[in-house]
Amino acid sequence: MVHPGRPIGELLVKTTATESPLEKLFVGTEKGDRLSASRLMTVLENEGEENDRALRSLYTREGRSFVIGVTGWPGVGKSTLISRIAKVFLDQGKQVGIIAVDPSSPFSGGGLLGDRLRFRSIDGSDRLFIRSAASRGHQGGLSRATRAFVKVMEVMGRDVVIVETIGIGQEQVDISLVADTTVVVLAPGLGDYLQAIKSGIIEIGDIFVVNKADRPDAEKAVQDTKAAILMREKAPWQPPVVKTVAADGSGVDELIREIERHREYTTNCADAPATKARAAIHEILEAIKNGLLKKYLEEDPSRGAAIEGHAQMVFQRHTDPALVAETIFLKE
Amino acid sequence: MVHPGRPIGELLVKTTATESPLEKLFVGTEKGDRLSASRLMTVLENEGEENDRALRSLYTREGRSFVIGVTGWPGVGKSTLISRIAKVFLDQGKQVGIIAVDPSSPFSGGGLLGDRLRFRSIDGSDRLFIRSAASRGHQGGLSRATRAFVKVMEVMGRDVVIVETIGIGQEQVDISLVADTTVVVLAPGLGDYLQAIKSGIIEIGDIFVVNKADRPDAEKAVQDTKAAILMREKAPWQPPVVKTVAADGSGVDELIREIERHREYTTNCADAPATKARAAIHEILEAIKNGLLKKYLEEDPSRGAAIEGHAQMVFQRHTDPALVAETIFLKE
Repeated sequence: MVHPGRPIGELLVKTTATESPLEKLFVGTEKGDRLSASRLMTVLENEGEENDRALRSLYTREGRSFVIGVTGWPGVGKSTLISRIAKVFLDQGKQVGIIAVDPSSPFSGGGLLGDRLRFRSIDGSDRLFIRSAASRGHQGGLSRATRAFVKVMEVMGRDVVIVETIGIGQEQVDISLVADTTVVVLAPGLGDYLQAIKSGIIEIGDIFVVNKADRPDAEKAVQDTKAAILMREKAPWQPPVVKTVAADGSGVDELIREIERHREYTTNCADAPATKARAAIHEILEAIKNGLLKKYLEEDPSRGAAIEGHAQMVFQRHTDPALVAETIFLKE
Repeated sequence: MVHPGRPIGELLVKTTATESPLEKLFVGTEKGDRLSASRLMTVLENEGEENDRALRSLYTREGRSFVIGVTGWPGVGKSTLISRIAKVFLDQGKQVGIIAVDPSSPFSGGGLLGDRLRFRSIDGSDRLFIRSAASRGHQGGLSRATRAFVKVMEVMGRDVVIVETIGIGQEQVDISLVADTTVVVLAPGLGDYLQAIKSGIIEIGDIFVVNKADRPDAEKAVQDTKAAILMREKAPWQPPVVKTVAADGSGVDELIREIERHREYTTNCADAPATKARAAIHEILEAIKNGLLKKYLEEDPSRGAAIEGHAQMVFQRHTDPALVAETIFLKE
């Protein structure tokens, strides 16, 4: 898809022999080319100098999608629900991107979105673009790469981007930062609302879904979720609770209506709501911390080995990581 | 419980009027006094100077428990299983501590451990000590306080300490660091082993439990888990997969046998296994990062406000937190 307001001639002129390989990927991506976008994402996923350059260049580009975060514990039926949501937007003729947290995600295969021929544009291009992002286990959370993938999809001209995360721990914060609308998917029998509060997941949902709502304890799950929502910080937007059965599509229409209603609501809000502002601040602080640590370790290469030595003491529970940091490393 | 090798007279002498309130808590805790331990934990949970002093003092104390981490997604039946495990050790006459991640955890109430009279020592003291630790949502992970709670239970002279965590994201790493034996609890129908790998939970289990094993799809869950274990980094310890029905106690005996077998195995290992060493290094690095950031923000108070300003740009997806950190804050 060529961006509106950008003449096709300009794109052709830019694609010259003097252009860097990275710039070529950007030009292709801006035209909506899937192969260019895929390669660009691979660059952004790997570490190194080219990655840094790509990231800097990426954020100078135009593009704005409606980003829907879909988060929930394993087993609640996120994948099927995402397929349903994607299908509604595809049937409206929209360009849809899906970012799944794992290569083994069922999206790539058949199922609801298997009949890809239906989702062709007039020019023959596929209106559905699915990309997996490896979840960075040890660092935790939605990786910097995943956030960059969203931006690539925006630069590609996708109308709607759906991001799937497991949504416990740090990820829950990240997804609410990157998404315009965060849908938290719950299911009956997966612990009560107290556990939802415990994990913090209740704080970040703009819309709550009780999926597998054909189960007998669905109504209790809805009531528990509503009770948990009442305990949140008061805010102008009151998150609705929608019952769905993703397997047969029940309730998906209502979910889409609530998503659109939230989209309208946020369109009229200039400032980030308090939770998203906090999440953004947190992310910047994390990035600064990582940069400070990098400098710290590079300043004196012996520090790395010393940390490894103290790790054995922590393992033996003779000391605590915070104590090691304070008394050994930050005293200098 | 008075520590072996420490004469009771020494403890009495130490409890003098010139002793600080904090030292009194430590002396009480070392005698196994629950009220002292509870108060000490409260000090360790709150932030501030007293906390820092308490933490420093804590790690100079003696005490070693067998620490069992029990981790798993919400709804798999961790609480019931922990009650079963605790009961086995209590029935052996042992002193047991349980650290639950949330005040709303069902442990405090009745159920399997309700009949507390059964768990009295000869001196009338309760051999079961349960303490909740608030999960620090935004920071993610098992808090520094939870780790300190384990150490307090060790100082108290608990034979066995069981720590419950939700175990997705950062927490999963932390629990494997603090626990001698990490039990990962899965249940049929909560997503397949691919999702287990995705979340990283498969990497940290010393023992895997498929709970709710009376469900029809239990055997598949066992096979999937075994397949996932085969994909792990090769190591001398091969994690077993145990089927349990915590609700009626089936399989708990076998689980206890495997826990004891793993305990014997680790007793013969002097060094931390690679995964635990990595987790310890990660924790120290995190603590150093936090200290570096604190210094950085204190050096120039205007930095805090500047970060808040850039947070709005991140929210608008005009930039990325990593880019903000590199190009604005770390350039100075």
